[in-house]
Amino acid sequence: LCILSYWIAGMTPFDAFVHGMTTSATGGFSNYDASMGQFAATSSILWIGIVFMFLGSLPFVLFVHMIQGNPSPIFKDSQVRALAKILLGAVLIMTLYLVTQLNWEWSTAITQASFNIVSIVSTTGFSSTDYNGWGNFAVLFFLYIMFIGGCSGSTSGGFKVFRHQLSVILMRNQMMTLLHPRGVFSQNYNGRPVPDDVIRSMVAFAFFFFATIGTLALALSFMGLDFITSFTSAVTAVANIGPGLGETVGPAGNFSSLPDLGKWLMSLGMILGRLEIVTFMILFTRAFWRT
Amino acid sequence: LCILSYWIAGMTPFDAFVHGMTTSATGGFSNYDASMGQFAATSSILWIGIVFMFLGSLPFVLFVHMIQGNPSPIFKDSQVRALAKILLGAVLIMTLYLVTQLNWEWSTAITQASFNIVSIVSTTGFSSTDYNGWGNFAVLFFLYIMFIGGCSGSTSGGFKVFRHQLSVILMRNQMMTLLHPRGVFSQNYNGRPVPDDVIRSMVAFAFFFFATIGTLALALSFMGLDFITSFTSAVTAVANIGPGLGETVGPAGNFSSLPDLGKWLMSLGMILGRLEIVTFMILFTRAFWRT
Repeated sequence: LCILSYWIAGMTPFDAFVHGMTTSATGGFSNYDASMGQFAATSSILWIGIVFMFLGSLPFVLFVHMIQGNPSPIFKDSQVRALAKILLGAVLIMTLYLVTQLNWEWSTAITQASFNIVSIVSTTGFSSTDYNGWGNFAVLFFLYIMFIGGCSGSTSGGFKVFRHQLSVILMRNQMMTLLHPRGVFSQNYNGRPVPDDVIRSMVAFAFFFFATIGTLALALSFMGLDFITSFTSAVTAVANIGPGLGETVGPAGNFSSLPDLGKWLMSLGMILGRLEIVTFMILFTRAFWRT
Repeated sequence: LCILSYWIAGMTPFDAFVHGMTTSATGGFSNYDASMGQFAATSSILWIGIVFMFLGSLPFVLFVHMIQGNPSPIFKDSQVRALAKILLGAVLIMTLYLVTQLNWEWSTAITQASFNIVSIVSTTGFSSTDYNGWGNFAVLFFLYIMFIGGCSGSTSGGFKVFRHQLSVILMRNQMMTLLHPRGVFSQNYNGRPVPDDVIRSMVAFAFFFFATIGTLALALSFMGLDFITSFTSAVTAVANIGPGLGETVGPAGNFSSLPDLGKWLMSLGMILGRLEIVTFMILFTRAFWRT
């Protein structure tokens, strides 16, 4: 469907094939240096990308339900709803910023904000323009949304929406406990109770996720890369996104100028991120080798 | 003792008084623009600062034990030992970096690394030189150690050592649970068992700590401050340290050029950090106002 839509919207069959494959799989490979910026003049192409990147970041099992004639789970799923709300909120903020601060036209602002935000959050990594030039606020904003990630059960990488939801559950419970120290509060997610060990494993993942990014960034900075390059390269590698931020590794740049050792370490970071880290860290415990 | 030592080491009585007060209290106010850089030529003054900043970041109740003739708790306390290890490790790394990468002399490297690292970790905020000019690795390194903080029960702010120790306990337990799903593992801190709700409240604090920093940084970036200025200003405010990083707010700069609104928000951030945030966040829950 994605390939067909791209083709109808004006891509050559080959371009449609390449971009269709890497849109639905939230991979983000393009056969143009400008990435999807090559097609930025045709906003329908960008909107096709937005729709299919979003679909690619949803739990795939819900599509199975849909094919089996039961479309309601996809609209009721708590993770899908949260992702949709996060994306709408982020696009709204960025659109208002582009219109009020940079005097963009509404239509361009909505399209460019939507495409690049959905691309980063779904960890696809396409870019349709150089948002690194949108000012300091936009750069920090794009750094933050790199930490969102898609839904679990999709091809997206990153921290993932359900972990953010579990964090919110934990925080709400903690506030309630402070107010009512003897209260017992339910923890529900998607209509089911959440056992404490699920929360603990989320916290452990968060710790390792940030620790891996921090270590990788420090290693890259040791090779002489500046603050924004080393830090965002580490984030984009571990979260499996694609572009970083700044002049060198931002949406208009690439990683070719990085030292070889830096590329090796980023490769390791990408694998760690894809394996969700904890499985890998087990290898470094003494107990694993004893058993 | 600190005032006296500074005086004997060569400060004027007034300078000794000012710096003695703000060293022991881990406050970091200096009556010179160069901060303790004014006295950097006299390394004994820097070492007096190192000793008293370190003492100021220890749990004060342990000094009471000491005065009562029982000095052993201060050497056995798990938090004190962890802080000492962290500081030694950090100073070792930074000294090796300065000697091998920037060709510094050993003695200068050890003194400058020790002073500025102890100053940041104890959240004092003195600087004895512009470590922002030590290269990309050093900048990221100083950003990271901003997140350590002193011991709880001291005048230091920040994340604090015991929370890092609780994180390590949580992570270790999580790894053991993954390896032995039916195992029950003890959680001990300073020889006492740690209930799960202590861990939960640490995690909640971490969440609010980082969320406050993230929000403040985004607000500052919206006022046009660049990536490193807005982010490190937010960290240094919420962790109650003093200097940020980068050209503007780094150890050789100050916050005078920031917009007024930015100063207001940073003031709020400093208060939030000092109140350890969660107490403040309660005000925004509906349940608090209902009770």
